[in-house]
Formats: sequence, structure tokens, C-alpha cells
Amino acid sequence: MAAVDVVVMAAGKGTRMKSRLPKVLHRLGGRPLIDHVIATAQGVGARRVIVITGHGAAEVEGSLAHTAAAAGHATPTFVRQEPQLGTGHAVQQVVPVLPDDGIALILNGDVPLIRAETLQALVERSGGARLALLTVEMKDPAGYGRIVREGDEVRAIVEHKDASAEQRRITEVYTGFMAVPSALLKRWLARLTNDNAQGEYYLTDIVKLAVADGQQVVASLAADGVEVDGVNSPVQLAELERAFQRRQAHALMEQGVRLADPARFDLRGTLACGQDVEIDVNCVFEGRVELGDGVRIGANCVIANARIAAGAVIHAFTHIDGEKAGVTVGEGALIGPFARLRPGAELGAEVHIGNFVEVKNSTLARGAKANHLAYLGDATVGERVNYGAGSITANYDGANKHRTVIEADVHVGSNCVLVAPVTVAAGGTVGAGSVINKNTAAGALSVARARQASIANWERPKKAPKP
Amino acid sequence: MAAVDVVVMAAGKGTRMKSRLPKVLHRLGGRPLIDHVIATAQGVGARRVIVITGHGAAEVEGSLAHTAAAAGHATPTFVRQEPQLGTGHAVQQVVPVLPDDGIALILNGDVPLIRAETLQALVERSGGARLALLTVEMKDPAGYGRIVREGDEVRAIVEHKDASAEQRRITEVYTGFMAVPSALLKRWLARLTNDNAQGEYYLTDIVKLAVADGQQVVASLAADGVEVDGVNSPVQLAELERAFQRRQAHALMEQGVRLADPARFDLRGTLACGQDVEIDVNCVFEGRVELGDGVRIGANCVIANARIAAGAVIHAFTHIDGEKAGVTVGEGALIGPFARLRPGAELGAEVHIGNFVEVKNSTLARGAKANHLAYLGDATVGERVNYGAGSITANYDGANKHRTVIEADVHVGSNCVLVAPVTVAAGGTVGAGSVINKNTAAGALSVARARQASIANWERPKKAPKP
Amino acid sequence: MAAVDVVVMAAGKGTRMKSRLPKVLHRLGGRPLIDHVIATAQGVGARRVIVITGHGAAEVEGSLAHTAAAAGHATPTFVRQEPQLGTGHAVQQVVPVLPDDGIALILNGDVPLIRAETLQALVERSGGARLALLTVEMKDPAGYGRIVREGDEVRAIVEHKDASAEQRRITEVYTGFMAVPSALLKRWLARLTNDNAQGEYYLTDIVKLAVADGQQVVASLAADGVEVDGVNSPVQLAELERAFQRRQAHALMEQGVRLADPARFDLRGTLACGQDVEIDVNCVFEGRVELGDGVRIGANCVIANARIAAGAVIHAFTHIDGEKAGVTVGEGALIGPFARLRPGAELGAEVHIGNFVEVKNSTLARGAKANHLAYLGDATVGERVNYGAGSITANYDGANKHRTVIEADVHVGSNCVLVAPVTVAAGGTVGAGSVINKNTAAGALSVARARQASIANWERPKKAPKP
Repeated sequence: MAAVDVVVMAAGKGTRMKSRLPKVLHRLGGRPLIDHVIATAQGVGARRVIVITGHGAAEVEGSLAHTAAAAGHATPTFVRQEPQLGTGHAVQQVVPVLPDDGIALILNGDVPLIRAETLQALVERSGGARLALLTVEMKDPAGYGRIVREGDEVRAIVEHKDASAEQRRITEVYTGFMAVPSALLKRWLARLTNDNAQGEYYLTDIVKLAVADGQQVVASLAADGVEVDGVNSPVQLAELERAFQRRQAHALMEQGVRLADPARFDLRGTLACGQDVEIDVNCVFEGRVELGDGVRIGANCVIANARIAAGAVIHAFTHIDGEKAGVTVGEGALIGPFARLRPGAELGAEVHIGNFVEVKNSTLARGAKANHLAYLGDATVGERVNYGAGSITANYDGANKHRTVIEADVHVGSNCVLVAPVTVAAGGTVGAGSVINKNTAAGALSVARARQASIANWERPKKAPKP
Repeated sequence: MAAVDVVVMAAGKGTRMKSRLPKVLHRLGGRPLIDHVIATAQGVGARRVIVITGHGAAEVEGSLAHTAAAAGHATPTFVRQEPQLGTGHAVQQVVPVLPDDGIALILNGDVPLIRAETLQALVERSGGARLALLTVEMKDPAGYGRIVREGDEVRAIVEHKDASAEQRRITEVYTGFMAVPSALLKRWLARLTNDNAQGEYYLTDIVKLAVADGQQVVASLAADGVEVDGVNSPVQLAELERAFQRRQAHALMEQGVRLADPARFDLRGTLACGQDVEIDVNCVFEGRVELGDGVRIGANCVIANARIAAGAVIHAFTHIDGEKAGVTVGEGALIGPFARLRPGAELGAEVHIGNFVEVKNSTLARGAKANHLAYLGDATVGERVNYGAGSITANYDGANKHRTVIEADVHVGSNCVLVAPVTVAAGGTVGAGSVINKNTAAGALSVARARQASIANWERPKKAPKP
Repeated sequence: MAAVDVVVMAAGKGTRMKSRLPKVLHRLGGRPLIDHVIATAQGVGARRVIVITGHGAAEVEGSLAHTAAAAGHATPTFVRQEPQLGTGHAVQQVVPVLPDDGIALILNGDVPLIRAETLQALVERSGGARLALLTVEMKDPAGYGRIVREGDEVRAIVEHKDASAEQRRITEVYTGFMAVPSALLKRWLARLTNDNAQGEYYLTDIVKLAVADGQQVVASLAADGVEVDGVNSPVQLAELERAFQRRQAHALMEQGVRLADPARFDLRGTLACGQDVEIDVNCVFEGRVELGDGVRIGANCVIANARIAAGAVIHAFTHIDGEKAGVTVGEGALIGPFARLRPGAELGAEVHIGNFVEVKNSTLARGAKANHLAYLGDATVGERVNYGAGSITANYDGANKHRTVIEADVHVGSNCVLVAPVTVAAGGTVGAGSVINKNTAAGALSVARARQASIANWERPKKAPKP
């Protein structure tokens, strides 16, 4: 079969979004609407992707170029439609960059949930020889263009306002997607006119031209309505976001992941799970997250860009965001509740990070623990270290960041400050409340603390009289 | 048209609520049920609001007087129904305080979602000349009083148990709301009797009297069922709470606000949003909240009584409650995750408040930062101050609160305590772990710290043998 | 009537769960599926519980023995089915341990929501004399075995594939549950054959044998589909989890508990509530939790194994887990937001625990407060103690845990460390930033702090040039 060249309509303003952002850049599942469409198109083996931009063209093109670069794909070909004189006019802009020998697969940049199987079937229906329209059955088709058939062939798309009473009973409607031999498409595009009330060039008019030419027009039915729904308003965006999340949740459950409530699960990126992973209610995953066998994620966690090894338990209210550097959590580690892991946190097996503890750009070796109210930044922490409650690595002198090294088996007391650059050598102990700014010897007790003094019968401050 | 005097039925006990609280004071969207009804009635220009109280009368009246005072409205007129002998008896109590020249609009205090448009249409249907009943179409009307019409006029309300088989097929039912010329109402109220099984006076009996008098009785149909649903149990309260939240979520999305999940959004108060505001899943807003252009609110935030300026980002798990004093967050500020802003927190532009940081009654100037595990209470913090991890303003001496002043460009190290009243002058540095209780000079390094000492080969405590 | 002996089918693998865990041990509402079934069976007065195990038999038996022991019940009788040759074969294994004089009530271990009333009705329908099948009406019965009746009696169960067009229109289907006189059951089990395509012994074949014997076969209709739904996949598990949670939420609301959103409420255990309890959105309860009159639980709390007395307020983002030791919160206490109470936290009346505060194995007497960023572990805290921000009990010396005693009316300053074992005597004050490791005298001010020093015109570190 002929090669497929994808044409994505992305010139619309999206007035009802009431946003500064061009419509196709609004995000669903954390990615721009149009990125979903292009990714799906690539899934059916598109030879070329051509995007028709208009409103916010520079911003749309910049975003797509960035996405393509990040994914290692070729940047799409952009053509601009200015001014915007209808869907037919939009596709006319593509003519110079569209090869004659392929099938043009025309998609909408604001219809994000279209499935690859559906596009594949549409392309096959065209077969490089026919104009194939993607259609869908609607319970209430009022307002939509009806598909008038004779047997297997489509005779016309009739707009609702032009439809006879009998035609209005037709429930098969046009979706805006089509697959068409590019050579035929170009021939018909050249013959479009705009003598209608709006003065616009309509792409659907090519159906009339095809029928007049005696060319076959056929239909391919989409499986469900949601995959051809477009986003025109924040209400519709929220509806499709939920449909998308249900789809993802269902796919994960089919793989064996146990979700406490699929309606309270959000994935904005990719989530790779081992066996027997359990995810409690109201968790959000972003970026690229991997969960090993038997990992359990507690309620209300937000986890982004992290690899969590088998058997680790992430308790409720844990916030992990590895951003670019990533976060790794070792086997059997216990994290949270109320823990925060930031970029560059690399936790070994059996590490414990407890409540109100923040870890950033630090390596903790097997069995290290920081269980309470602590900050570890730019630190290298050895095996079995116990890092006391309220202790802090002062990694920032106001100008530069420095590294703290805590060697194996060190016990850091409560409310200490380790002023980087500094090393606490293996087996050492740091007394509670100490500020350590000089390296300590292995096995030594290091203390920086004033002697306890007492003033008997001390008079407490009294409540001041109200002025 | 005649003036509208609103009569609100609020005497019922609400036994099925199983609560000490009178039914109409149960909260929906954070406000008592009856407050919704009265606010809506005021929205149609009520001249006078008369509330019929009974069970928990003093508590209901106190609550309404408080609400009216807070909103700058006149306190409603209260009449008490004691004992409670039926809906007709309830409205009879109103006669002495109801002017003759108006239209009485009779509402239920436990039907919170009634819309102003619906009441407006009902009043217009009465037109000061007719008894107008608010009706609704129900799919399953079993148990409800059917509206028997002759053309446009209502001939009777027939109770389910008294209805013929034909009448039971009627799906238009009475809602308990009516608009009626007060002079006519009073005439009919005087003729009500209680010779029925329950020995009660029914307001619906005035329909019979009106028809007998040859007065017109008409119906006005409510758009949907939910706006005439009453609250009789916690189950119904929860259902209407969700309906109310969906209504609010939808209205915000229509304005352009992007909600990640409208089913996980709660607003108990007012939320004013600029353009391109994004709100992630499971957030709760209370009191009066304003969000400027482009503000992003992360997942699982609770925000009350706060003004957040354009471009600020509130990360997940942030808790803000300004109570009476309010909280303000400046343009481009970054807050959270796990931050808590309390009353009187006034954060300038580009301020950063990080994880496990609490700010109360403090002003932070542009660019100030407190990123980790810190407390700022009763403090004045200058521009570009860096407030170290674990540092605390000791603002309370056990009796009185004092102010801490940290001037511009100060760098406070980790785990410091600033004992108020105290001033750290501009450009100063406070060494880690210092307790500062005397004012410091501009540009000075201030330290209160013991020298680091070491005991070699220190013998750690040993695990005690089990007794 | 005859005694009821319960037979639970629990030998299946549950391949579609894609889990290492045997299917009946998957958790719903925090308990294994089969525990729900057995608890319900015990609710109808089962004399004996016999469980047929197979896949993962040892694990299933171990779990059930543990559950029975924890509840003080007799361990079920286990019989193993190895290999697994069909449902009839499974029940054949039971013959040696099933008394002849009772009614066998045959249940599925993966159908967790079956209700006691339904089982009771099924047993009564059998009456010790008849084979009674539990059936259910299905809108779409395709694929299920149809119940062919003659009047009140069942003539056959016809598998979908064997059903005539007329039989396929039957919407009453068999559920897999039955009650049957054990003596009759044994007679029929002995006559089962496996001459069918699968070569399996089917329990449903006993219907044929009963009819052939002229014994009565009757049906008892389940009230709704969800109670006879089985769990075969994570998708179904999630669906039943939600159905179970809705059922629990509804029951609590019927008792008067006010849930802000019943669809965002999870109870995995038992929750006993007083009057006027309010629970905000997205809370999770586990183990055994008691909430006294008027308790309010804020949004996003996770609470397990705790008793919270009347009038206490638990603010948003509070995490309580008493595990075995339990947590108690006194009357009128204020907890959170962002508080964590761990096992052995016993808080008296009017105690305040604020943000980023952790309490473990500690007793706080009436009116004690720890409002900010603090850790209390293994501590005994007297009345009215004010425990300063950032202060920590150093209860762990790296080997052993020791106790800290803070007597009544003590004021502990900010960022202190109390090194256990230590006692701060009544009325004492501890200066900010002090490390206290010796007992203090009553009423004394205790300080361990270096003198504040200053270096004028201190040169700050400069940003290092990029290498």
C-alpha cells in the first residue's frame, strides 16, 4: 500500500478555551493535545507529518519542534494558514509539501484520544484508491453532518441544517478525519469554491466532487465516540482528561496493577510496573516512573521521574520529583509519610526516609536512615548511618553549594548542622545540637556544644497588659 | 409588578439527619442550607425575608442574624411556629408580618439549590394576580403530589395515595414552592382546616380554595430536579453537595479555569480567577480566594481566604488559611510542596516558601526565601533574605509575642533561633546553629556557637540486654 | 431447621489477577476476599466452615488460620483439591468432613459482597429438604447459565452455549451459590461424571440428578448483582472495592455521619462514630477507629487504629497510625494540619499538635502544646507544657531508647534537644537552642548556649566561577 502522509489541522483559535494558549497546546495527561495526535499518527507509520498552523503558529511550531527533538523524531513540516478561510482552505496550504504518491491522512490536532487501530482501519479502507471518511454512530446526531450511504458507498455528507427529515434520522456522522489518495485530494482541493453563506472553503465539499468524478467514497466507523471527541472548552478538556485517565488506569489494571480507585488515579507520562504493584487512592504520576515488583504506593502520593525498586514501600503523602536528574529508591526502602525526594536523590536498599524529611542530590547507601524532620542536600551518606531528627546539611554558603560526606556507621545526633564541605569519618558520632564544620576522625565523638547552666527560680515573662 | 416578600419554611426538625443541629443549619458548600435559599431569594429582589422557625428556633435565628450582619444585609423577620401543625399552620404564623400589597414567595429552607432564574419565572407566572406553583417533571413520581391541569391552568394537587390510576401517570409534581398574591394567600389561610388523618393544616389546600373561588392557579416548571431537591438525611445532603460542587466547577470552567478533575474539586465560598488558572486534582477552597492570571495550584491543596497573584505556583500539599487576617502571595512566588501559610502571611513577588515551612503573621519582601523546615512567625523579612533550613523565630516568650526583623540581604544559616524582639541588620550573616537574642550590626557575621571538640575512639552505647 | 455447614470454594488460581498472591487473598476493604465471605457465613450461624483450597493452599490456609485466631474464632476445616478437576470435584473433596445431618451452604471465596440476608433466605429456601440455588436477574445474561423453571420449581440450569433461542431470553441466571441437604448432596456428588468436552466434574450437574430423583429444586433470588459478582481481575477487584466503599459510606451516613463526598471515602476496618461527626473529602480509615461526638476530620487525612474523643478537630493532611499500641486523642484536642501521630501517642484533652510535628509512644497531659516542627518520642509531657518549635527528644542513643519527662508547666524553647533519659522539672524553662542532658530543677531556667559574638564587615563567600 502507498505511504501515509499525515496532515494535522492545528490552526484554530479555540475561543471557548478563554486562554492565551493556542488550543492544541492545552494539556491532556500532561502533554499538549496535538502531541497525542502526532504520537498516534506515528504509531501507524506516518512517512511525513505536516501540521497546519495559524493562531499562535509560532508557539505551536516551537512546542512541536521541542517535543520532536526530545523524542528523537524529525520535526514536523509546518505550513501556515493565514488568514483562515475554512477547512478546505487549510488543507490547500499543504499542497506544495504533500507528495503525490501517498495517502493523505487528515487529522484534527484537538482530538487527542483517537486510537492507532482506528487510523489504521481508516487508511486500509482508503487503500490508496478511495476517499475514506472516519464516521461514528451518535445517539443524538443533531448538529452533525450525516453520512448518506448507498449500500457500502457514501453518497454525501449532509449538514444538519440542509438535511431532510429522513436524513436527520441518520445516526452515522462525519468526524472530521479522512484518508484519501493525495493525488485525488489535490485535484479536488483545486476545485473547491467558497460560494456559501460563510464564504469559506469546506474540506467536506470534496465528497461531492469525488462522487461527481465517479470515485469511490467509503466510510470507516470509529469504535466509540470519545476517540473522535474534540476539545473546544475547558469542560470538554476535563471530560477527555478523565476518559484518558480511565483508559490508562484500565490498561494498568489489565497488566495486574492494583488500583484502589481507578477514578482517583492520574498518570501524566509513563508508568512501568512490575508484578503485584499496589497504588492507593488519589496518587498522581508524572514523567517517567518505574515501580518494581511488589512496590506499594500509599494514598495521596505525587511521584514524578523516579525509579522505585522491588519491595519498596512509599507511604502516604510522599512527594517525589526527580525532574531531569531522577530519583532512585532501592529495594525494600521505606519512604514517608510526608517525605520529599528531589532530583538526584539516590537511595540504596533498605534506606528509611521518614516524616518531614527532604533529600536532594544525595546518595544514601544501604540501610541509612533519616527518619524525622531533616534535610539532606548534596550529601554522600554511608551504609547504616543514622541521621538524627532535625539535622541539616548546610550545603549552601549563600553563593556556592558544597558536599557533605557522612561515612558508614556514623550516628548524627538531633538538631545538628553539618557545614559543608565537611566529612564525618566512619563510625563517628556527632553529639546532639552540634554544628560541625571541621572534618572528624573515624570513630570519634564530635561535639560543639555549650555547657548546661541553670538559673534557679527564674521569673517568666508576664503577659503584657493590653495597651 | 408588586413587591416580592419571601417566606422561608425553616421550622422542621430533620429527624433523619440524626444531628443536634437544626436541619436548615447543616452546611452545603460551607454555608447553612438556609443561607443558600435566602441569598437566592435576595437575588430576585426580595423586599422582605420572613423566616418561620420552630425546632432549634433560637439557633436558626442566631445563625441567620449573624450571616445577615456579616453580609451587611437586614436581619430577616422571624416568626415562630410552636407547636408545628403543618405547612399551612406554618404560613399562618406569617400573616401578621406579611404586607397585603405584595407577592408572597414561599420557599423551603432545606432546598438549597433553587436557582434565581427559577424563582424569577415563578414570580412572573404569578404576576401578582395568580397562585403560581413551582412544579417539576419526575421520571418516577411515586409518592409525590401530582399536578392536575386543564390546559394551562392547574385544577388540583392530588396526593399520590388519593390519585386515580390515570392521575398516577402524571409526571408533573408539586415542589413545595409557590408565589401568590399575599392578600389572596391570607384569605385562603384563614379558611384552612385540619380535618384530615394527621390533624394538620396543609398549605397545598389553598389550591382547592383558589379553584373554588374561581381564581387562576398556574404552574411554573423548574428546569431540573436537583434544584428542588430537599435535604432530609446525610445521604441527600451529600448528593446535593456534589451537585452543588459540579455546578460551581462547571461555572468556573466556563470562565476558562482548567480543572484537572471537576469531580474532585470543592469550593466552599468564592473563588475569583484570572485567565489561564490551572487547578490540579483534589483541591479544596474555602472562604474568599483570588487567583491571578496563570496561577497554578498543585494536587491536594487546601486554600482559604487568600489572594494569590499572577504567575504564582502553589505546589502540591500546600495548606493556606488566611482566616480573618488573610494571606497574600506575590507575583511569581513559589510555594510548597508541604508549605503552610497562616493568617497575616504577606509574601512579596518571587518569594519562595519550601517544604515543611510555616509562615504566620509575617511579611516577606521580594525574593526572600525560606526553603526548608522553618518557622517564621511575627517576622518582617527584607528583600532577598535567605532563611536557612530549620531556623525558627522564637516569637513567643510564654506570655507575649514579639517581632523579629530580618533586614534585606541577610543570610540566616541553618538551625538558628532568632529570639524576638531582635533585629538582624541588613546584609548580615547568622552562623548555623546560632541563637540570636541581641540586635546585630549591618554586614556583620553573628555567631553563637561552641567550639567543636572531639573525643577519640568514643565508645558507643551498647544495646541493653532484654530484661 | 438443620444446622448449616458452610463450604467455601477457594482453590482457583485467578490467572487474570496476574499476581503471585492466590486470588482469594486479594484484599477488598483491607481484608482478603475470602475473609468477607467467611465473616458473612458466620453471620448466618454456620456450625462449621470448610474451605476447599488448591492453588496457593498453604498460603490461603495460613491466612485464614491467622484471621480466625485474631478474631477468636475456630480455624476453618481445610480440604485440598489437587489436581483441580472442576467444581463438582472440588465439593467431592469435602465429603469426608461434611456431616450428613446439616445443610451444606456452598459459597465462592472470591465473591466478597454477598450479604447475610441473602444467604439466610437461601438457607430457608432449602429448608433442609430442597436443593436451593441462588439466582440473580441480569440485564445481559449472555454467557451465563439460565434458570429454567416450571412455576416455582427449577427444572434445569442450561449453559448459554446449549440454550435454545427461547431459553436465551431467560434473564435469571445461576450465581454459583447453593444450599442443599448434605445427605442429598453427597448422594449426587457420588454420581457426577466428567464425560464432557473439558473432562471436568461440574457441581451444577447435581440439578439434573435432583430432578431425575424427583427431588425439589428451587431458586432464591439475590437482591442485586453486585453481591454475587466475583473477582477475576484487578478491574473487577477495583469495581467491587468501590461498591463496598459505597455500601459502607451509605451505612455511616444513615447513622448520621456527614461525609463531604461518599465517593472519596475509604474504610478498611471498622469506624464507630458518635453524633455529629463530619468527615471531609478523601480520607482513609484503617483498622479500628472510634470518633466521638462532634469530631471533625479535615480533608486528606489517613487514620488507623485510633480513638479520638468528642469535640476533637483533626485538620487536613493528618496521618495517624496507632498500629498495635493505638493512638488516643483527648476531648477538644486540635491536631494538624500535617501532624503525625504514631503508636502509643496518648494525647489528653485540649492538647494541640501542630504542623510538621511527630508524636510517638508519648503521653501528653491536658493542655500541652507542640505546635511546630517538633518530635516527641518516648516522652511524658505534663499539663500545659509548651514545647517549642523545632525541639526534639533525643530518645535513641543508637542502641537503646530512653524516656524524657517534661513536667507540668514547663516551657521548652525553640530548637532544643532533650537528651534522654532526662527530666525537666515542673515550671522550668529551657532556653532556645539548648541541649539538655542533665535533669533540671523545678522552676529553673536551663540554658546550654554559647555567647553571641560578632565579626564586623564579614566578607561573604562569592559565587565560584564556573569551571
